[in-house]
Amino acid sequence: MQPINLAEKLATFSEYWQPRVVGQFNGHDLMVVKVKGEFLWHKHDDTDDFFLVLQGRITIRMREGDVTLSAGEVFIVPKGAEHCPFAEEEAHVLLLEPTGTPNTGDANTAAPRRVI
Amino acid sequence: MQPINLAEKLATFSEYWQPRVVGQFNGHDLMVVKVKGEFLWHKHDDTDDFFLVLQGRITIRMREGDVTLSAGEVFIVPKGAEHCPFAEEEAHVLLLEPTGTPNTGDANTAAPRRVI
Repeated sequence: MQPINLAEKLATFSEYWQPRVVGQFNGHDLMVVKVKGEFLWHKHDDTDDFFLVLQGRITIRMREGDVTLSAGEVFIVPKGAEHCPFAEEEAHVLLLEPTGTPNTGDANTAAPRRVI
Repeated sequence: MQPINLAEKLATFSEYWQPRVVGQFNGHDLMVVKVKGEFLWHKHDDTDDFFLVLQGRITIRMREGDVTLSAGEVFIVPKGAEHCPFAEEEAHVLLLEPTGTPNTGDANTAAPRRVI
């Protein structure tokens, strides 16, 4: 029984847009990810998409407009809503998604789920 | 469409052990809470219990031993596990529980769920 230190987990890898699973909660994967640049437009038909910025700043482009998040800010993309995450500089983000959810919204293009 | 600024939400109240709902995610309430002192021993038979410390330090007493969390650390109490949160000094915590979960494990003694 140890706490999960998010900064320590983030220090173990450097790739962008490759989430690492750090815990399990009610059928969801708790993940940390480093991001920089633009991801891709996608949506999740069966789940909301939870973002908490731990360091830096990200913009979540939505069809209705951009939402910019700094450290200590959360945004929850409603299920079915198209979005495209973007970060001008490296940012660190906490994610929560049902276990098995493809990060791109498509199992064919999704990053593998790696547990650390 | 606005980000949820957790520090701003926390600045709107001062009571301890009275979670405020700040968002919704997949049937769960996302909550912030200020804690100080000892809560009570309880368990949730139907849900894991998610704690992320935003400021300060808390100890989650478990029957197997204590788990101490500082800012940036997460602990997920497995469903059914008895636990008793404690904080020597004021601490700020992010919680995630299925909507309607009593914070004490018992609807008769639970704090009301207040949305801010």
